[in-house]
Amino acid sequence: MRQAHGSLTIGTRGQGLVEITREVATWLDEQRIVNGLLTVFCRHTSASLTINENAAPAVRRDLERYFSTLAPESRSYEHDDEGPDDMPAHLKTALTDVSLSIPVQDGRMVLGTWQGMYLFEHRTAPHRRTLALHVIGE
Amino acid sequence: MRQAHGSLTIGTRGQGLVEITREVATWLDEQRIVNGLLTVFCRHTSASLTINENAAPAVRRDLERYFSTLAPESRSYEHDDEGPDDMPAHLKTALTDVSLSIPVQDGRMVLGTWQGMYLFEHRTAPHRRTLALHVIGE
Amino acid sequence: MRQAHGSLTIGTRGQGLVEITREVATWLDEQRIVNGLLTVFCRHTSASLTINENAAPAVRRDLERYFSTLAPESRSYEHDDEGPDDMPAHLKTALTDVSLSIPVQDGRMVLGTWQGMYLFEHRTAPHRRTLALHVIGE
Repeated sequence: MRQAHGSLTIGTRGQGLVEITREVATWLDEQRIVNGLLTVFCRHTSASLTINENAAPAVRRDLERYFSTLAPESRSYEHDDEGPDDMPAHLKTALTDVSLSIPVQDGRMVLGTWQGMYLFEHRTAPHRRTLALHVIGE
Repeated sequence: MRQAHGSLTIGTRGQGLVEITREVATWLDEQRIVNGLLTVFCRHTSASLTINENAAPAVRRDLERYFSTLAPESRSYEHDDEGPDDMPAHLKTALTDVSLSIPVQDGRMVLGTWQGMYLFEHRTAPHRRTLALHVIGE
Repeated sequence: MRQAHGSLTIGTRGQGLVEITREVATWLDEQRIVNGLLTVFCRHTSASLTINENAAPAVRRDLERYFSTLAPESRSYEHDDEGPDDMPAHLKTALTDVSLSIPVQDGRMVLGTWQGMYLFEHRTAPHRRTLALHVIGE
Protein backbone atom coordinates (compact mmCIF):
# COMPACT_ATOMS: atom_id res chain seq x y z
CA MET A 1 0.00 0.00 0.00
CA ARG A 2 1.35 3.43 -0.86
CA GLN A 3 0.15 6.99 -1.42
CA ALA A 4 0.98 10.01 -3.53
CA HIS A 5 0.33 13.74 -3.23
CA GLY A 6 0.12 16.30 -5.99
CA SER A 7 -1.46 19.54 -7.07
CA LEU A 8 -3.11 20.88 -10.18
CA THR A 9 -3.34 24.52 -11.22
CA ILE A 10 -6.32 25.45 -13.38
CA GLY A 11 -6.82 28.79 -15.12
CA THR A 12 -10.43 29.98 -15.25
CA ARG A 13 -12.01 32.67 -17.47
CA GLY A 14 -14.44 33.98 -14.88
CA GLN A 15 -17.70 32.42 -13.68
CA GLY A 16 -18.43 28.98 -14.99
CA LEU A 17 -17.71 25.26 -14.96
CA VAL A 18 -14.30 24.09 -16.21
CA GLU A 19 -14.02 20.37 -16.85
CA ILE A 20 -10.96 18.84 -15.16
CA THR A 21 -11.62 15.11 -15.65
CA ARG A 22 -8.73 14.65 -18.09
CA GLU A 23 -6.22 16.63 -16.01
CA VAL A 24 -7.04 14.61 -12.90
CA ALA A 25 -6.94 11.31 -14.82
CA THR A 26 -3.54 12.19 -16.27
CA TRP A 27 -2.12 12.94 -12.81
CA LEU A 28 -3.58 9.66 -11.54
CA ASP A 29 -1.93 7.73 -14.40
CA GLU A 30 1.45 9.11 -13.46
CA GLN A 31 1.17 7.85 -9.86
CA ARG A 32 0.99 4.17 -10.90
CA ILE A 33 -1.56 3.32 -8.22
CA VAL A 34 -4.11 1.15 -9.99
CA ASN A 35 -6.50 0.33 -7.15
CA GLY A 36 -7.33 2.73 -4.36
CA LEU A 37 -9.02 5.98 -3.42
CA LEU A 38 -8.46 9.36 -5.08
CA THR A 39 -9.29 12.64 -3.31
CA VAL A 40 -9.47 16.05 -5.00
CA PHE A 41 -9.53 19.06 -2.67
CA CYS A 42 -10.21 22.68 -3.75
CA ARG A 43 -8.05 25.15 -1.78
CA HIS A 44 -10.38 28.15 -2.31
CA THR A 45 -13.52 29.69 -0.84
CA SER A 46 -14.83 31.29 -4.03
CA ALA A 47 -14.43 28.31 -6.34
CA SER A 48 -15.50 24.71 -5.75
CA LEU A 49 -15.86 21.22 -7.21
CA THR A 50 -18.77 19.26 -8.59
CA ILE A 51 -19.42 16.15 -10.66
CA ASN A 52 -22.16 16.31 -13.27
CA GLU A 53 -23.08 15.49 -16.87
CA ASN A 54 -20.36 16.18 -19.42
CA ALA A 55 -22.15 15.21 -22.65
CA ALA A 56 -24.59 18.10 -23.24
CA PRO A 57 -23.04 21.60 -22.91
CA ALA A 58 -26.53 22.94 -22.16
CA VAL A 59 -26.44 21.17 -18.77
CA ARG A 60 -23.34 23.15 -17.88
CA ARG A 61 -24.99 26.43 -18.85
CA ASP A 62 -28.19 25.58 -16.94
CA LEU A 63 -26.12 24.71 -13.86
CA GLU A 64 -24.28 28.05 -14.07
CA ARG A 65 -27.52 30.02 -14.46
CA TYR A 66 -29.23 28.09 -11.69
CA PHE A 67 -26.57 28.77 -9.07
CA SER A 68 -26.47 32.45 -10.08
CA THR A 69 -30.21 32.63 -9.41
CA LEU A 70 -29.96 30.66 -6.15
CA ALA A 71 -27.20 32.93 -4.79
CA PRO A 72 -27.86 36.20 -6.66
CA GLU A 73 -25.54 39.18 -6.87
CA SER A 74 -28.60 41.42 -6.67
CA ARG A 75 -29.26 40.56 -3.03
CA SER A 76 -27.72 42.76 -0.37
CA TYR A 77 -24.93 41.18 1.70
CA GLU A 78 -23.01 42.47 4.69
CA HIS A 79 -19.75 41.24 3.15
CA ASP A 80 -19.12 42.94 -0.21
CA ASP A 81 -15.47 44.00 0.08
CA GLU A 82 -14.54 42.61 -3.31
CA GLY A 83 -17.70 43.49 -5.22
CA PRO A 84 -21.17 42.04 -5.85
CA ASP A 85 -19.79 38.63 -6.89
CA ASP A 86 -17.88 38.20 -3.62
CA MET A 87 -20.49 36.83 -1.22
CA PRO A 88 -22.45 34.83 -3.87
CA ALA A 89 -19.12 33.07 -4.56
CA HIS A 90 -18.86 31.95 -0.93
CA LEU A 91 -22.49 30.78 -0.95
CA LYS A 92 -22.09 28.73 -4.15
CA THR A 93 -18.96 27.20 -2.62
CA ALA A 94 -20.97 26.14 0.44
CA LEU A 95 -23.72 24.64 -1.74
CA THR A 96 -21.38 22.52 -3.87
CA ASP A 97 -18.23 20.49 -3.01
CA VAL A 98 -14.83 21.35 -1.56
CA SER A 99 -13.60 17.75 -1.66
CA LEU A 100 -14.43 14.69 -3.76
CA SER A 101 -13.33 11.12 -3.06
CA ILE A 102 -13.55 8.60 -5.88
CA PRO A 103 -12.59 4.92 -5.87
CA VAL A 104 -9.95 3.94 -8.43
CA GLN A 105 -10.09 0.52 -10.13
CA ASP A 106 -7.76 -0.83 -12.83
CA GLY A 107 -6.05 2.54 -13.02
CA ARG A 108 -9.22 4.59 -13.57
CA MET A 109 -11.64 6.61 -11.47
CA VAL A 110 -14.94 4.70 -11.34
CA LEU A 111 -16.88 7.59 -12.90
CA GLY A 112 -20.19 6.71 -14.55
CA THR A 113 -20.65 7.03 -18.31
CA TRP A 114 -21.95 10.60 -18.16
CA GLN A 115 -19.95 11.92 -15.22
CA GLY A 116 -17.33 14.64 -15.61
CA MET A 117 -15.46 16.41 -12.84
CA TYR A 118 -15.63 20.21 -12.81
CA LEU A 119 -13.92 23.13 -11.15
CA PHE A 120 -16.66 25.68 -10.57
CA GLU A 121 -15.31 29.25 -10.75
CA HIS A 122 -17.61 31.64 -8.90
CA ARG A 123 -15.77 34.96 -9.38
CA THR A 124 -16.33 37.24 -12.38
CA ALA A 125 -12.62 37.77 -13.03
CA PRO A 126 -10.34 34.99 -14.35
CA HIS A 127 -8.34 33.22 -11.61
CA ARG A 128 -5.66 30.61 -11.19
CA ARG A 129 -7.01 27.88 -8.88
CA THR A 130 -5.06 25.20 -7.05
CA LEU A 131 -6.40 21.72 -6.35
CA ALA A 132 -4.67 19.33 -3.95
CA LEU A 133 -4.66 15.68 -5.04
CA HIS A 134 -4.13 12.53 -3.01
CA VAL A 135 -4.29 8.87 -3.89
CA ILE A 136 -3.81 5.87 -1.65
CA GLY A 137 -3.81 2.26 -2.78
CA GLU A 138 -1.58 -0.25 -4.51
CA MET B 1 -3.51 -2.52 5.87
CA ARG B 2 -5.68 -3.67 2.98
CA GLN B 3 -8.54 -2.44 0.81
CA ALA B 4 -11.61 -3.80 -0.95
CA HIS B 5 -13.75 -2.62 -3.86
CA GLY B 6 -17.35 -3.46 -4.59
CA SER B 7 -20.54 -2.21 -6.12
CA LEU B 8 -24.19 -2.11 -5.15
CA THR B 9 -27.14 -1.94 -7.52
CA ILE B 10 -30.28 -0.29 -6.17
CA GLY B 11 -33.66 -0.26 -7.87
CA THR B 12 -35.67 2.93 -7.44
CA ARG B 13 -39.37 3.57 -7.99
CA GLY B 14 -39.03 7.09 -9.31
CA GLN B 15 -38.29 10.30 -7.40
CA GLY B 16 -37.53 9.89 -3.73
CA LEU B 17 -35.13 8.78 -1.03
CA VAL B 18 -34.27 5.07 -0.79
CA GLU B 19 -32.51 4.06 2.40
CA ILE B 20 -29.35 2.03 1.72
CA THR B 21 -27.76 1.90 5.19
CA ARG B 22 -28.36 -1.83 5.58
CA GLU B 23 -27.12 -2.77 2.10
CA VAL B 24 -23.90 -0.81 2.61
CA ALA B 25 -23.40 -2.23 6.12
CA THR B 26 -23.86 -5.78 4.79
CA TRP B 27 -21.24 -5.24 2.10
CA LEU B 28 -18.88 -3.77 4.70
CA ASP B 29 -19.37 -6.84 6.94
CA GLU B 30 -18.32 -9.13 4.13
CA GLN B 31 -15.00 -7.32 3.60
CA ARG B 32 -13.73 -8.13 7.10
CA ILE B 33 -12.08 -4.74 7.51
CA VAL B 34 -12.99 -3.66 11.03
CA ASN B 35 -11.20 -0.31 11.29
CA GLY B 36 -10.77 2.05 8.39
CA LEU B 37 -12.51 4.39 5.98
CA LEU B 38 -15.51 3.54 3.80
CA THR B 39 -16.35 5.53 0.66
CA VAL B 40 -19.64 5.30 -1.25
CA PHE B 41 -19.68 6.86 -4.72
CA CYS B 42 -22.79 7.38 -6.88
CA ARG B 43 -22.04 6.77 -10.58
CA HIS B 44 -24.91 8.92 -11.89
CA THR B 45 -25.76 12.55 -12.64
CA SER B 46 -29.50 12.35 -11.98
CA ALA B 47 -29.36 10.51 -8.65
CA SER B 48 -27.21 11.28 -5.64
CA LEU B 49 -26.41 10.42 -2.02
CA THR B 50 -27.27 12.03 1.29
CA ILE B 51 -27.23 11.19 4.99
CA ASN B 52 -30.17 12.32 7.08
CA GLU B 53 -32.68 11.27 9.73
CA ASN B 54 -34.07 7.78 9.32
CA ALA B 55 -36.52 7.65 12.23
CA ALA B 56 -39.45 9.83 11.10
CA PRO B 57 -40.71 9.11 7.55
CA ALA B 58 -42.08 12.67 7.44
CA VAL B 59 -38.51 14.00 7.29
CA ARG B 60 -37.94 12.00 4.12
CA ARG B 61 -41.12 13.37 2.55
CA ASP B 62 -40.27 16.96 3.54
CA LEU B 63 -36.78 16.54 2.05
CA GLU B 64 -38.25 15.27 -1.23
CA ARG B 65 -40.76 18.14 -1.41
CA TYR B 66 -38.14 20.72 -0.49
CA PHE B 67 -35.71 19.77 -3.24
CA SER B 68 -38.55 19.65 -5.78
CA THR B 69 -39.39 23.24 -4.83
CA LEU B 70 -35.75 24.35 -4.84
CA ALA B 71 -35.13 22.90 -8.32
CA PRO B 72 -38.64 22.99 -9.85
CA GLU B 73 -39.74 21.26 -13.03
CA SER B 74 -41.92 24.29 -13.78
CA ARG B 75 -38.91 26.52 -14.51
CA SER B 76 -37.67 26.74 -18.08
CA TYR B 77 -34.29 25.13 -18.80
CA GLU B 78 -32.16 25.08 -21.94
CA HIS B 79 -31.52 21.35 -21.46
CA ASP B 80 -34.80 19.40 -21.49
CA ASP B 81 -34.00 16.52 -23.86
CA GLU B 82 -35.42 13.89 -21.55
CA GLY B 83 -38.40 15.82 -20.18
CA PRO B 84 -39.17 18.33 -17.43
CA ASP B 85 -37.52 16.20 -14.71
CA ASP B 86 -34.19 16.07 -16.60
CA MET B 87 -32.47 19.32 -15.62
CA PRO B 88 -33.95 19.49 -12.07
CA ALA B 89 -32.35 16.04 -11.56
CA HIS B 90 -28.89 17.41 -12.42
CA LEU B 91 -29.45 20.41 -10.11
CA LYS B 92 -30.51 18.25 -7.15
CA THR B 93 -27.46 16.08 -7.78
CA ALA B 94 -25.23 19.17 -7.59
CA LEU B 95 -26.90 20.31 -4.34
CA THR B 96 -26.49 16.97 -2.53
CA ASP B 97 -23.63 14.41 -2.47
CA VAL B 98 -21.92 12.27 -5.09
CA SER B 99 -19.50 10.70 -2.61
CA LEU B 100 -19.58 10.02 1.13
CA SER B 101 -16.63 8.95 3.27
CA ILE B 102 -17.36 7.45 6.68
CA PRO B 103 -14.89 6.18 9.27
CA VAL B 104 -15.37 2.51 10.27
CA GLN B 105 -14.72 1.38 13.85
CA ASP B 106 -15.18 -2.10 15.28
CA GLY B 107 -16.69 -3.26 12.02
CA ARG B 108 -19.34 -0.52 11.82
CA MET B 109 -19.72 2.86 10.13
CA VAL B 110 -19.63 5.52 12.85
CA LEU B 111 -23.10 6.82 11.96
CA GLY B 112 -24.91 8.78 14.67
CA THR B 113 -28.06 7.40 16.30
CA TRP B 114 -30.44 9.06 13.84
CA GLN B 115 -28.37 8.91 10.69
CA GLY B 116 -29.36 6.81 7.70
CA MET B 117 -27.68 6.74 4.29
CA TYR B 118 -29.90 7.39 1.27
CA LEU B 119 -29.80 7.06 -2.47
CA PHE B 120 -31.76 10.07 -3.77
CA GLU B 121 -33.49 9.26 -7.07
CA HIS B 122 -34.27 12.45 -9.00
CA ARG B 123 -35.92 11.04 -12.13
CA THR B 124 -39.66 10.38 -12.39
CA ALA B 125 -39.22 6.92 -13.90
CA PRO B 126 -37.85 3.95 -11.92
CA HIS B 127 -34.13 3.31 -12.48
CA ARG B 128 -31.41 0.86 -11.56
CA ARG B 129 -28.55 2.80 -9.95
CA THR B 130 -25.00 1.64 -9.33
CA LEU B 131 -22.91 2.70 -6.36
CA ALA B 132 -19.17 2.06 -6.17
CA LEU B 133 -17.87 1.07 -2.73
CA HIS B 134 -14.35 1.20 -1.32
CA VAL B 135 -12.96 0.45 2.10
CA ILE B 136 -9.39 0.72 3.30
CA GLY B 137 -8.14 -0.29 6.73
CA GLU B 138 -7.27 -3.40 8.70
CA MET C 1 1.15 3.02 6.51
CA ARG C 2 -1.04 3.37 9.57
CA GLN C 3 -4.32 4.96 10.64
CA ALA C 4 -5.87 6.57 13.70
CA HIS C 5 -9.43 7.18 14.87
CA GLY C 6 -10.68 9.83 17.24
CA SER C 7 -13.61 12.03 18.15
CA LEU C 8 -14.13 15.66 18.96
CA THR C 9 -16.99 17.10 21.01
CA ILE C 10 -17.97 20.68 20.23
CA GLY C 11 -20.37 22.79 22.28
CA THR C 12 -22.56 25.14 20.24
CA ARG C 13 -24.57 28.17 21.37
CA GLY C 14 -27.48 27.67 19.00
CA GLN C 15 -27.66 28.38 15.26
CA GLY C 16 -24.43 29.42 13.64
CA LEU C 17 -20.99 28.51 12.40
CA VAL C 18 -18.38 27.41 14.94
CA GLU C 19 -14.83 27.30 13.64
CA ILE C 20 -13.12 23.98 14.40
CA THR C 21 -9.92 24.26 12.33
CA ARG C 22 -7.67 24.51 15.38
CA GLU C 23 -9.32 21.62 17.25
CA VAL C 24 -9.01 19.32 14.24
CA ALA C 25 -5.38 20.41 13.60
CA THR C 26 -4.50 19.72 17.24
CA TRP C 27 -5.95 16.22 17.05
CA LEU C 28 -4.07 15.61 13.81
CA ASP C 29 -0.79 16.74 15.42
CA GLU C 30 -1.22 14.17 18.17
CA GLN C 31 -1.57 11.28 15.70
CA ARG C 32 1.96 11.76 14.29
CA ILE C 33 0.83 10.96 10.75
CA VAL C 34 2.53 13.59 8.59
CA ASN C 35 1.39 12.59 5.11
CA GLY C 36 -1.99 11.12 4.37
CA LEU C 37 -5.72 11.75 4.25
CA LEU C 38 -7.86 13.20 7.07
CA THR C 39 -11.62 12.66 7.22
CA VAL C 40 -14.01 14.55 9.51
CA PHE C 41 -17.51 13.11 9.84
CA CYS C 42 -20.45 14.83 11.59
CA ARG C 43 -22.62 12.32 13.49
CA HIS C 44 -25.78 14.44 13.44
CA THR C 45 -28.72 15.26 11.17
CA SER C 46 -29.35 18.81 12.43
CA ALA C 47 -25.76 20.06 12.34
CA SER C 48 -23.22 19.74 9.54
CA LEU C 49 -19.78 20.69 8.26
CA THR C 50 -18.52 23.24 5.77
CA ILE C 51 -15.27 24.89 4.73
CA ASN C 52 -15.33 28.60 3.96
CA GLU C 53 -13.59 31.92 4.53
CA ASN C 54 -12.34 32.50 8.04
CA ALA C 55 -10.89 36.00 7.73
CA ALA C 56 -13.96 38.26 7.58
CA PRO C 57 -16.61 37.55 10.27
CA ALA C 58 -19.20 39.14 7.96
CA VAL C 59 -18.90 36.12 5.63
CA ARG C 60 -19.94 33.87 8.49
CA ARG C 61 -22.95 36.02 9.29
CA ASP C 62 -24.00 36.23 5.62
CA LEU C 63 -23.71 32.42 5.33
CA GLU C 64 -25.91 31.96 8.41
CA ARG C 65 -28.54 34.42 7.14
CA TYR C 66 -28.48 32.91 3.64
CA PHE C 67 -29.16 29.35 4.77
CA SER C 68 -31.94 30.57 7.08
CA THR C 69 -33.59 32.21 4.08
CA LEU C 70 -33.01 29.19 1.82
CA ALA C 71 -34.58 26.79 4.35
CA PRO C 72 -36.93 29.08 6.29
CA GLU C 73 -38.68 28.29 9.56
CA SER C 74 -41.71 30.20 8.27
CA ARG C 75 -42.53 27.52 5.69
CA SER C 76 -44.93 24.77 6.68
CA TYR C 77 -43.40 21.29 7.04
CA GLU C 78 -45.01 17.92 7.73
CA HIS C 79 -42.28 17.12 10.27
CA ASP C 80 -42.27 19.69 13.09
CA ASP C 81 -42.10 17.47 16.21
CA GLU C 82 -39.33 19.48 17.78
CA GLY C 83 -40.42 22.96 16.74
CA PRO C 84 -40.09 25.28 13.72
CA ASP C 85 -36.27 24.91 13.59
CA ASP C 86 -36.50 21.10 13.29
CA MET C 87 -37.08 20.51 9.59
CA PRO C 88 -35.00 23.53 8.38
CA ALA C 89 -32.11 21.94 10.33
CA HIS C 90 -32.40 18.71 8.33
CA LEU C 91 -32.59 20.68 5.05
CA LYS C 92 -29.50 22.77 5.84
CA THR C 93 -27.70 19.53 6.73
CA ALA C 94 -28.60 18.09 3.32
CA LEU C 95 -27.39 21.26 1.54
CA THR C 96 -23.98 21.34 3.23
CA ASP C 97 -21.51 18.57 4.21
CA VAL C 98 -21.66 15.56 6.49
CA SER C 99 -18.09 14.47 5.74
CA LEU C 100 -14.94 16.25 4.59
CA SER C 101 -11.74 14.59 3.36
CA ILE C 102 -8.58 16.68 3.28
CA PRO C 103 -5.08 15.65 2.19
CA VAL C 104 -2.39 16.06 4.87
CA GLN C 105 1.16 17.09 3.91
CA ASP C 106 4.10 17.74 6.22
CA GLY C 107 1.82 17.33 9.22
CA ARG C 108 -0.80 19.86 8.10
CA MET C 109 -4.12 19.82 6.28
CA VAL C 110 -3.62 21.39 2.85
CA LEU C 111 -6.19 24.13 3.51
CA GLY C 112 -5.89 27.27 1.38
CA THR C 113 -4.92 30.61 2.90
CA TRP C 114 -8.50 31.69 3.58
CA GLN C 115 -10.08 28.33 4.38
CA GLY C 116 -11.42 27.49 7.82
CA MET C 117 -13.37 24.38 8.81
CA TYR C 118 -16.73 24.94 10.49
CA LEU C 119 -19.30 22.99 12.44
CA PHE C 120 -22.65 24.44 11.35
CA GLU C 121 -25.22 24.24 14.15
CA HIS C 122 -28.75 24.39 12.76
CA ARG C 123 -30.83 24.12 15.95
CA THR C 124 -31.88 27.15 18.02
CA ALA C 125 -30.85 25.60 21.33
CA PRO C 126 -27.20 25.00 22.28
CA HIS C 127 -26.03 21.42 21.68
CA ARG C 128 -23.05 19.19 22.22
CA ARG C 129 -22.00 17.75 18.85
CA THR C 130 -19.70 14.82 18.17
CA LEU C 131 -17.41 14.58 15.17
CA ALA C 132 -15.66 11.34 14.21
CA LEU C 133 -12.08 11.75 12.95
CA HIS C 134 -9.93 9.42 10.88
CA VAL C 135 -6.50 9.76 9.39
CA ILE C 136 -4.57 7.29 7.27
CA GLY C 137 -1.01 7.73 6.05
CA GLU C 138 2.54 7.56 7.30
